[in-house]
Amino acid sequence: MPHSQKQKQGGTMDQDVAYGKQVSAGTRDLRTIDCNPDFWYPVAWSRELKVGKTIGTRYAGQPIALVRPVEGGVFALEDRCAHRQVPLSKGVVKGQAVQCCYHGWAYGRSGRCIDVPYLGKGKLPNGVRTYPCREEGGLIFIFPGDPALADSVPFPKLAQVANPAFKTRQFGPRVKCHYTFMHENLMDMNHQFLHRRQMGQIRSRLLGQDRGEDFVEARYSFARTGTHQPLAEALIFGRHRDLEGREQPVEEVVTIRTEYPYQTLTIVDKDGDMIMSLWAAYVPQSADQRESRAFGLLSVLRPKIPFLIDVIWPVLGGFTNRIFEEDREIVEMEQQAWDAQGGDWNVEVFPVVNHLRALLARCGDQTVK
Amino acid sequence: MPHSQKQKQGGTMDQDVAYGKQVSAGTRDLRTIDCNPDFWYPVAWSRELKVGKTIGTRYAGQPIALVRPVEGGVFALEDRCAHRQVPLSKGVVKGQAVQCCYHGWAYGRSGRCIDVPYLGKGKLPNGVRTYPCREEGGLIFIFPGDPALADSVPFPKLAQVANPAFKTRQFGPRVKCHYTFMHENLMDMNHQFLHRRQMGQIRSRLLGQDRGEDFVEARYSFARTGTHQPLAEALIFGRHRDLEGREQPVEEVVTIRTEYPYQTLTIVDKDGDMIMSLWAAYVPQSADQRESRAFGLLSVLRPKIPFLIDVIWPVLGGFTNRIFEEDREIVEMEQQAWDAQGGDWNVEVFPVVNHLRALLARCGDQTVK
Amino acid sequence: MPHSQKQKQGGTMDQDVAYGKQVSAGTRDLRTIDCNPDFWYPVAWSRELKVGKTIGTRYAGQPIALVRPVEGGVFALEDRCAHRQVPLSKGVVKGQAVQCCYHGWAYGRSGRCIDVPYLGKGKLPNGVRTYPCREEGGLIFIFPGDPALADSVPFPKLAQVANPAFKTRQFGPRVKCHYTFMHENLMDMNHQFLHRRQMGQIRSRLLGQDRGEDFVEARYSFARTGTHQPLAEALIFGRHRDLEGREQPVEEVVTIRTEYPYQTLTIVDKDGDMIMSLWAAYVPQSADQRESRAFGLLSVLRPKIPFLIDVIWPVLGGFTNRIFEEDREIVEMEQQAWDAQGGDWNVEVFPVVNHLRALLARCGDQTVK
Repeated sequence: MPHSQKQKQGGTMDQDVAYGKQVSAGTRDLRTIDCNPDFWYPVAWSRELKVGKTIGTRYAGQPIALVRPVEGGVFALEDRCAHRQVPLSKGVVKGQAVQCCYHGWAYGRSGRCIDVPYLGKGKLPNGVRTYPCREEGGLIFIFPGDPALADSVPFPKLAQVANPAFKTRQFGPRVKCHYTFMHENLMDMNHQFLHRRQMGQIRSRLLGQDRGEDFVEARYSFARTGTHQPLAEALIFGRHRDLEGREQPVEEVVTIRTEYPYQTLTIVDKDGDMIMSLWAAYVPQSADQRESRAFGLLSVLRPKIPFLIDVIWPVLGGFTNRIFEEDREIVEMEQQAWDAQGGDWNVEVFPVVNHLRALLARCGDQTVK
Repeated sequence: MPHSQKQKQGGTMDQDVAYGKQVSAGTRDLRTIDCNPDFWYPVAWSRELKVGKTIGTRYAGQPIALVRPVEGGVFALEDRCAHRQVPLSKGVVKGQAVQCCYHGWAYGRSGRCIDVPYLGKGKLPNGVRTYPCREEGGLIFIFPGDPALADSVPFPKLAQVANPAFKTRQFGPRVKCHYTFMHENLMDMNHQFLHRRQMGQIRSRLLGQDRGEDFVEARYSFARTGTHQPLAEALIFGRHRDLEGREQPVEEVVTIRTEYPYQTLTIVDKDGDMIMSLWAAYVPQSADQRESRAFGLLSVLRPKIPFLIDVIWPVLGGFTNRIFEEDREIVEMEQQAWDAQGGDWNVEVFPVVNHLRALLARCGDQTVK
Repeated sequence: MPHSQKQKQGGTMDQDVAYGKQVSAGTRDLRTIDCNPDFWYPVAWSRELKVGKTIGTRYAGQPIALVRPVEGGVFALEDRCAHRQVPLSKGVVKGQAVQCCYHGWAYGRSGRCIDVPYLGKGKLPNGVRTYPCREEGGLIFIFPGDPALADSVPFPKLAQVANPAFKTRQFGPRVKCHYTFMHENLMDMNHQFLHRRQMGQIRSRLLGQDRGEDFVEARYSFARTGTHQPLAEALIFGRHRDLEGREQPVEEVVTIRTEYPYQTLTIVDKDGDMIMSLWAAYVPQSADQRESRAFGLLSVLRPKIPFLIDVIWPVLGGFTNRIFEEDREIVEMEQQAWDAQGGDWNVEVFPVVNHLRALLARCGDQTVK
């Protein structure tokens, strides 16, 4: 990795374009760079894994069995019996072990095979791989890379999930695209045109950007250019009107940040107080990493009027779902175009996105497949 | 291309067989020869494209956006935004331009990018490819090959679509096979056995054939060998009975002609007057050209009794649909067999079809993929 | 093939493990070894092929048309017209011939083309391949290998299908896995854990094994370790209780035998009399042999009380179907794991299964694809 090159840029878009660099010929295609496994990745919602049960999940084609014993924390094993490779997650949790559904081989928390019902204890075969595992904020995380690094790699801050002043919504669609498309989608707020039916006419303005060795950040303000403000938006931010009732520019600042490998979106009001915070991870599902599962936590500041947040919650949920559905559809189209072309033909003119692409390439898994 | 070798052959089938040549070993497999793009191909029905809208279509794997502005004719662009490759046909028509649904990049009739909403006009990136485009007879055509040839390549005559003495029916199924199977299917009228449930027992007789540099033609008469004549056929041709009420041989002549790349079927009555005319094009959909979309225009002479044609139209429609469904099923089986075998094992004994195969090979795209 | 190495082993499991050999590195992956075609394989149930009809079936990707003329036995042709390769099984049976549905070419019992309706008899093209064909015990068999061997290769004994003291049930699911997984599944009776919901808790005990050049056999007894005995099992074997009503070990002996390429399961009671007999063949469907169709005949001794077998038959059917459904699901998971891994990672500790694997590898088709 190159040494830290932190810098701050405001400037107009046109100036930025002059500095924007296209990915030059010979550079590796970003969509062929795997996500770096030496980080903590969510692989399931806590509510999906009942007490005394096991479920199967995956990271980049690796099958993973999550096990929640009646006593003790969740643990994560390679979801493949050492015997005949069938998923352990189809098996039975027994004490601190999981027993394969087929011939009953049992594996403990350490992955070691501790019982083959028809074999002497002295003959037990080797066990299966384990993954470091943590449960936080309603999510189950594993560390798919080098286990020796798990303790030293920082665990992410999960939006405002632990802050009672906020109410947090979970969302987690599966998206048929490379994780990099999702980072670029959110980072480039010039795509408000996509959401014109949900949001009305909005013009974004880049206020500034930051970048460093492991992050890219962009700050935006938004101005409404049409007259219609959607209900859900008004409920969160209030109406923006002047004394004559004309709508006014929104004064909130929206900050998008990819701090590898996570992405956040934070909204502060004109006084600098946070009113919304989103944290998201895009977890590769298939071995070719062209399918992802998003895990998102969206924390919204509770309004001063008690219970109002609960009343508006379903509206907010439907609104964000519709927005996300549009985003899902477009990034899947991008992946389909990449598949059809067999490569990345993008012509990016927005410097923030080019910085982000460089970040994702630099921090990703450099292994050539 | 070989120089023109026009000749006329009548003769019996058995004589013809003696002259029939199998495709010799070493010859290129006909199902790997792409359709020649230097012709006008229909890619949509006019009614599919509403005013002020854009739709996506394709030619041989190339995505194409058709745009119908409120004023001016239809135009055709590469259906792929220069920015992030998503389909322009998901976008919005604005004046003489189409605006990408994602970040709002706009492209004019020439394919040039004329606006990026968040970028200065001096910085506009390159645009997208265009296709010569014409709208005739309820069909939208493009010229997928070298645009410089578009003006000089003859535009096809579309059955009797412009002749008020005829009523024209459109049909356009998608067929999962190489376009060449469809040409061979129609040209070989010995396949009436396939339609025995729809047509009753019919025996075709080859009256003669013609061929030239860019066409193959065969003329047939038909004799009914069973007793049942279907209603739809009787409605078009009238009943064929002698004075004692016995059914008589049909005296119409059916001419099938592939004039590359189009195919026609014409029926003239015993006086030599045309009573039916079919024009069809088989347009490759996928890049491997193993899927086609047929566009057919079937013109039927209006009977002397006014409105009778409108009364019989639904019967005729159902009849031709059932016939075509049988043809679709069988040519898809041929493609499936080719796929399973990985090559063409056909043993053709009918000279007309061998001439047709040679024509399709000779006129097709000679590029080796 | 190595010369015959027949031996008999009883011994405990732990001793056996010491002699168990893993498939060593460099050995060919068992799941890439095709089934040996020089045997009789069932390809359809007799009831599927009505008089005067033809149906399509397949062996390892080879399409086969089975034809049952009104008079004379069933015959089997390559299911591909010599003309344009469409399935003959879509055609019409006419006397001792089948006529292709497309242009009406006709093929006799010998595979020879005996008529092209529009061609002189002197010009008839070659015909299609035939397969030796036999109909026995409600099954239609073909010999897909070298036809010269068909008469000398022994025809299998089909359970007790011809014995009126037994009632025989047919079952024949399609299973998306290599045939070898199915042999191993049945041979290894330590997989009773898989059927714990159907069978209750059962512990198998290996009584002994035999093996020879073309077979592997294992004999088991079973002890119930839980209290619940399923109804269907009690109906076949009776309840096993001592004088105080406590359940007793089952004293029947279950013998599983793979005599290449078939597999049998036989149950004898404590007096050595057969009470149940299963015969099964696993027939590769796709060319890569990763899909199979099982044909099973399950013969159950009729109880002394007349008609009792008919009363319990549906219960028995549902019971065996549920058991088989669990087996189908698990062997398909094994195939999925193999596909995902791209190879066999199994660690087998049970000598019987390792002997079986060696048998299947040795007797299989040694051709490298």
